[in-house]
Amino acid sequence: MQTNVGHFCINVADLERSVTFYEEVMGLKLDQRIQIPNVNEAILVGQDGSSGIQLAEHLDRTGVIDHGNAFWKLYIHTDDCEGLFRKAIEAGSTSNGAPQRLEQWPVTIAFITDPDGYEIEIVQSHSE
Amino acid sequence: MQTNVGHFCINVADLERSVTFYEEVMGLKLDQRIQIPNVNEAILVGQDGSSGIQLAEHLDRTGVIDHGNAFWKLYIHTDDCEGLFRKAIEAGSTSNGAPQRLEQWPVTIAFITDPDGYEIEIVQSHSE
Repeated sequence: MQTNVGHFCINVADLERSVTFYEEVMGLKLDQRIQIPNVNEAILVGQDGSSGIQLAEHLDRTGVIDHGNAFWKLYIHTDDCEGLFRKAIEAGSTSNGAPQRLEQWPVTIAFITDPDGYEIEIVQSHSE
Repeated sequence: MQTNVGHFCINVADLERSVTFYEEVMGLKLDQRIQIPNVNEAILVGQDGSSGIQLAEHLDRTGVIDHGNAFWKLYIHTDDCEGLFRKAIEAGSTSNGAPQRLEQWPVTIAFITDPDGYEIEIVQSHSE
């Protein structure tokens, strides 16, 4: 039996607000929209067309997303951590950690939140 | 600027219990373990080595995961939805929906929960 991990789906309070954020700020591409009873969804993928993120707005729910302590973070890979971090902050994201180059791994990482407060870890890999 | 979606990270109450579930029941492969202060993590990937799932156990937290209403579900793709669903149920997973072939898309899907109650949508694609 073959098994592979697909994408993941997070609930959002305002689908259009989130689609705009992931498209215009994070630079992802809107791949498809899905409507099922009481739920409007959108799937966005990376610029290489690979693995994506599914956003779902439940029309019978109101108010802000209750994060509990279940989902921790999602990763966005980029070739410009500093630039993407700055772009997000200028668009209204909260910083959970300014860009820093790690000593133990060849990466620069930064932490921001999306419009619902989901944490995003921005990762830029370095060749050396 | 290039941006792509990476994997995602969910908090779990018992890392070894979850690693065992995703390895032995879901059939994923343990790719790496990471230890950072107060957190033990594991990353599992699909059998094709592609996109993975990161599990994190915070050592300073106890009790069950509080799911709030933020994370909805993750997708596991397989070539045998019925078999994987049955295997999960026999291992103690709760069914949130028995396998059904959809009319609007060429897929068979089923819903189960992992040991922390995260929802997993099992998807088998059909060529016709």
